[in-house]
Amino acid sequence: MKALVYHGPGTKSLDERTMPELAAPTDAIVRVTRTTICGTDLHILKGDVPTCEPGRILGHEGVGVIERVGTAVSSLRHGDHVLISCISSCGKCEFCRRGMYSHCTTGGWILGNKIDGTQAEYVRIPHAETSLYPIPAGADEEALVMLSDILPTGFECGVLNGKVQPGSTVAIVGAGPIGLASLLTAQFYSPAQIVMIDRDANRLEVSRTFGATACIDIGQADAVPEIMKLTDSAGVDCAIEAVGVPETFELCQSIVAAGGTIANVGVHGVKADLHLEALWDRNITITTRLVDTVSTPMLLKTVRSGRLDPNKLITHRFRLDDIMNAYETFGHAADTHALKVIIEASG
Amino acid sequence: MKALVYHGPGTKSLDERTMPELAAPTDAIVRVTRTTICGTDLHILKGDVPTCEPGRILGHEGVGVIERVGTAVSSLRHGDHVLISCISSCGKCEFCRRGMYSHCTTGGWILGNKIDGTQAEYVRIPHAETSLYPIPAGADEEALVMLSDILPTGFECGVLNGKVQPGSTVAIVGAGPIGLASLLTAQFYSPAQIVMIDRDANRLEVSRTFGATACIDIGQADAVPEIMKLTDSAGVDCAIEAVGVPETFELCQSIVAAGGTIANVGVHGVKADLHLEALWDRNITITTRLVDTVSTPMLLKTVRSGRLDPNKLITHRFRLDDIMNAYETFGHAADTHALKVIIEASG
Amino acid sequence: MKALVYHGPGTKSLDERTMPELAAPTDAIVRVTRTTICGTDLHILKGDVPTCEPGRILGHEGVGVIERVGTAVSSLRHGDHVLISCISSCGKCEFCRRGMYSHCTTGGWILGNKIDGTQAEYVRIPHAETSLYPIPAGADEEALVMLSDILPTGFECGVLNGKVQPGSTVAIVGAGPIGLASLLTAQFYSPAQIVMIDRDANRLEVSRTFGATACIDIGQADAVPEIMKLTDSAGVDCAIEAVGVPETFELCQSIVAAGGTIANVGVHGVKADLHLEALWDRNITITTRLVDTVSTPMLLKTVRSGRLDPNKLITHRFRLDDIMNAYETFGHAADTHALKVIIEASG
Amino acid sequence: MKALVYHGPGTKSLDERTMPELAAPTDAIVRVTRTTICGTDLHILKGDVPTCEPGRILGHEGVGVIERVGTAVSSLRHGDHVLISCISSCGKCEFCRRGMYSHCTTGGWILGNKIDGTQAEYVRIPHAETSLYPIPAGADEEALVMLSDILPTGFECGVLNGKVQPGSTVAIVGAGPIGLASLLTAQFYSPAQIVMIDRDANRLEVSRTFGATACIDIGQADAVPEIMKLTDSAGVDCAIEAVGVPETFELCQSIVAAGGTIANVGVHGVKADLHLEALWDRNITITTRLVDTVSTPMLLKTVRSGRLDPNKLITHRFRLDDIMNAYETFGHAADTHALKVIIEASG
Repeated sequence: MKALVYHGPGTKSLDERTMPELAAPTDAIVRVTRTTICGTDLHILKGDVPTCEPGRILGHEGVGVIERVGTAVSSLRHGDHVLISCISSCGKCEFCRRGMYSHCTTGGWILGNKIDGTQAEYVRIPHAETSLYPIPAGADEEALVMLSDILPTGFECGVLNGKVQPGSTVAIVGAGPIGLASLLTAQFYSPAQIVMIDRDANRLEVSRTFGATACIDIGQADAVPEIMKLTDSAGVDCAIEAVGVPETFELCQSIVAAGGTIANVGVHGVKADLHLEALWDRNITITTRLVDTVSTPMLLKTVRSGRLDPNKLITHRFRLDDIMNAYETFGHAADTHALKVIIEASG
Repeated sequence: MKALVYHGPGTKSLDERTMPELAAPTDAIVRVTRTTICGTDLHILKGDVPTCEPGRILGHEGVGVIERVGTAVSSLRHGDHVLISCISSCGKCEFCRRGMYSHCTTGGWILGNKIDGTQAEYVRIPHAETSLYPIPAGADEEALVMLSDILPTGFECGVLNGKVQPGSTVAIVGAGPIGLASLLTAQFYSPAQIVMIDRDANRLEVSRTFGATACIDIGQADAVPEIMKLTDSAGVDCAIEAVGVPETFELCQSIVAAGGTIANVGVHGVKADLHLEALWDRNITITTRLVDTVSTPMLLKTVRSGRLDPNKLITHRFRLDDIMNAYETFGHAADTHALKVIIEASG
Repeated sequence: MKALVYHGPGTKSLDERTMPELAAPTDAIVRVTRTTICGTDLHILKGDVPTCEPGRILGHEGVGVIERVGTAVSSLRHGDHVLISCISSCGKCEFCRRGMYSHCTTGGWILGNKIDGTQAEYVRIPHAETSLYPIPAGADEEALVMLSDILPTGFECGVLNGKVQPGSTVAIVGAGPIGLASLLTAQFYSPAQIVMIDRDANRLEVSRTFGATACIDIGQADAVPEIMKLTDSAGVDCAIEAVGVPETFELCQSIVAAGGTIANVGVHGVKADLHLEALWDRNITITTRLVDTVSTPMLLKTVRSGRLDPNKLITHRFRLDDIMNAYETFGHAADTHALKVIIEASG
Repeated sequence: MKALVYHGPGTKSLDERTMPELAAPTDAIVRVTRTTICGTDLHILKGDVPTCEPGRILGHEGVGVIERVGTAVSSLRHGDHVLISCISSCGKCEFCRRGMYSHCTTGGWILGNKIDGTQAEYVRIPHAETSLYPIPAGADEEALVMLSDILPTGFECGVLNGKVQPGSTVAIVGAGPIGLASLLTAQFYSPAQIVMIDRDANRLEVSRTFGATACIDIGQADAVPEIMKLTDSAGVDCAIEAVGVPETFELCQSIVAAGGTIANVGVHGVKADLHLEALWDRNITITTRLVDTVSTPMLLKTVRSGRLDPNKLITHRFRLDDIMNAYETFGHAADTHALKVIIEASG
């Protein structure tokens, strides 16, 4: 089969690989129909993710069709259409029982990282019954690729942790795909304001069409006074960090209201300053989280009922044969205006 | 009347002052029977609290007897015995309505800071009905002085924010009065372990008698491996920071379990490093809080029912005439083994 | 001044009354600009509310302008435009401090019940600062009359207690003004389905335009199988009872899913059967509540931001001189299709 | 092997049965070392539980040693000591993922009900990895039999659902084993008062030694005025129903405070009256629940740390050969003063 393989920092290629085999009774082999590329894949390619070794098939998102299941899999069968979660969850360990699938002792984020992933014609999914979600007949399967990672990430790490609620004020720092996923799902709770902060005019323009009530271009204006103007000098109830660098995390500290929450979504490579001298008496909550995908069933319901339209995030489509171009397009988003790119893996 | 007055950094004296007067219909004048000294008073004396100006009577804790009330005070009358909250709360502003009394727009921590305080024979209490708590007949009033500030602080900022629960593991960094207040009130929730971390052997010894299940003397041992030994390498569910310096806050980051909480109680003067590169995917919550004293009614019930014995925190007693000595004793706690000192203000 | 006065069961008239006077330092006198009639007023007129004695001016909803304030009122002044809460709250008693304003020891629902109400040119509001809400300049004041009672009731007793959340299924039994208020505010949380159940075709038609995803006319069909068809036989996550008779409460028991909630909003005059033999092992929650109006600040924000349009509930308008007709219209809603009627009390 | 078999209403015997076999890859066969008898077993014997058919081996509690595991079981092996949960949970279905194991679509309460149970030398446990809990070396295994059902039931259905908290007031109606389990675990949260209500003097005496702060013998006194005396006429914050008849559930309605909770634990065979005419405006919550055993890991930690001593509930011990006598003793608890009886099943 064809698969996009990581060969070490800076190197990848579309290779011919042998088909995956069932390795445990709880495994399933899934024929991947649609997959996509994540910002994390770019991090791997830069060499930032030491757990991912050369030779690894990348990708942790996608939808597909069950090809084969292990002897212990009772609720899935050949031909079932499934959504693949970016997080593998055994359903049995202490963390899974607590809803922290991201820390599953034999799972977590392993797909396209510690084991071969979804940017291929077929993929082996461990803990299949607790890591795959049946797709109802008639669903727009391509749209559901957005539920593998990006929408639960924006929702769980940003919106749920940020305790967005009716009438509250929200700022999202970073209008990339993850920030936009937070923007879309924050609207589940009818906040009064959602302010997007970025330096990319196109992404801010997209934000407006996605429901932002205000946008701040920090190439043009200083975000702190702008936020204070918009919030009667109170700051925002919820600041969502969706970039992953110290500057943006520190900006969140300057704009959060007393009693508010900073919900970190970004992947950070270095420490940030925490201004406890200013925040110790401000009744602030700061959260971090690797997406658990516990909200996937809820998100499927919101899509099915039309409350959420994941298609909005899809800007480009490629065939698997053309995945090197898909990476080019996604990797130069400022120029291509790419948000999420769909890869058609198999018919 | 006699009052302990701050005269600028490093200077204080027991002065003769005029009696306080009612200034608003919602005020009360309280004859102070017992007060105490807080670590924050020492901060003021160092010049660390710019909102407190020379000439200010210090003190924000105490119990007393109502002397006079304003025309709008209907539920308190001359002769009522009352507990004085360190936080003045109007009960009317947006913050008070949300239970964030610490951020009351006309109150908060003002006693012995922005207005004259309780280290005196009499004190004016603004927003009297929402800042004083009637003491039931027969109560041990001296013990209740511990409910003005230290016990609600340890409880709200440490235990409640830290989400201590049955069977969980707790580490408290700092075994001073505030850390001990967290230790006492954490036991309301029956955690499996409460580990105290300090470098003062006496305070660790006290901690044991107060219910700590283990103690780590960081003058003798490295806290991180010790905590990992005690928790099967998981770290603690809740790390309570009760010192207020970067080192101890950073220690909390090293010992908190995935999914756990760092509850900051300490007063910080400088920023700390936040190791987001290690924590971004650990599902951590960090909280800060100035005590709101919303839990005072609950704490009064736990004292009344014998579930909490605040007397344990009282080590020394002085008369108001001797308050300069009380400051000496409290200010040299390492030598005197002082926890909280009671000042008998008036008969 | 003119006022609508209750003279005992079945009798009311528009009388000339003396102006209200300030009775406590925390009172305000409000010139009522707009008021409305509540289903509860009809209950009083039937003689169902023994706390309301003959001679009482009715009405507990409205907006107006501050005429005079007591000496202890500091945040309101002559000329301020205010929303009148149906619940008077002292802000000081144990219940108010816990957010249960409905049980305020010196307040609660007293307006137009135990003290004179708002269907008059002027009204005295006790505990003014915690029972009135300033209206921002430029607001549609008439619309805000819906925030005195009906919208917080539908929201707090139905939606908040019912724990409506994204993707969940909701049934609202009763499509009268209160049920419609629940329907409007349930949408704050983006449930997948909101099914309205009633026997009035017009109200079901209105429900559709207000956002119901399905309607069941129980004059035409049996609600239980219909709900099961709509929910894959699971029942609804949240059943909101908005009628107040045993039959509708018992219907809720038949349609609630395992793990679901029955949120009672209706005013009940007799007991109902609780089928514990069927429900004891179904992990059900049942809630009752008299509206606390703790959500008024939140609701004001949702109106201001355009997330909620209270005007939808207003079907008729009358002048105070014509209030007897307003009662006629509101009392014959099946014929007049009245939802809420606005009474213009003073210019 | 020997097993206690139900042969239809009123009939049971200790029979010789064939050993259980693995039926699914996720099964385990457990050699039962200790089991016990539940009140529910008596209900089955009365013919009250139609899902339990003649020929069934009874029992849903116990500890034992793993004999054999299915091919999909990776975390348990021959010789492991395990606690058997009364609830079988697949860990995969929607209900298990939500923490509602009691409603597992292929599990729930099936042991000794729909499939053969634990009152035997060996038992087959489906969904073994999510229905068995490894027992740490050195634990008092007999004590842990109390964690199969009775302690999680008292804790989850009574204490957690009842939202017991520091300083609150609790009444437990029924001082049988389940009520006592609620009493023991309510103390995790340090309530100010726990009042036990029963008509059995011995059980009330036991309650006192278990930590009740007051007892009401309803054979001697009327519970309602007694509770009002103990609570300054407020009623209790939490009323736990641990009997299962209409009278006791209705008593709970009379003693619950405004804003309080009625947590139903009892198994009900008939409906009760719900006095909505009195409760509709009292801000009450009523909960029902079949134990989910989600709290088992937490309870194991409280036992291990010494916060909970399950041995207190054990009054009698028998060998499996003598199980008919054990039933006699347990079935006549009023005379024998039995709480829980331990059956030693195999060496």
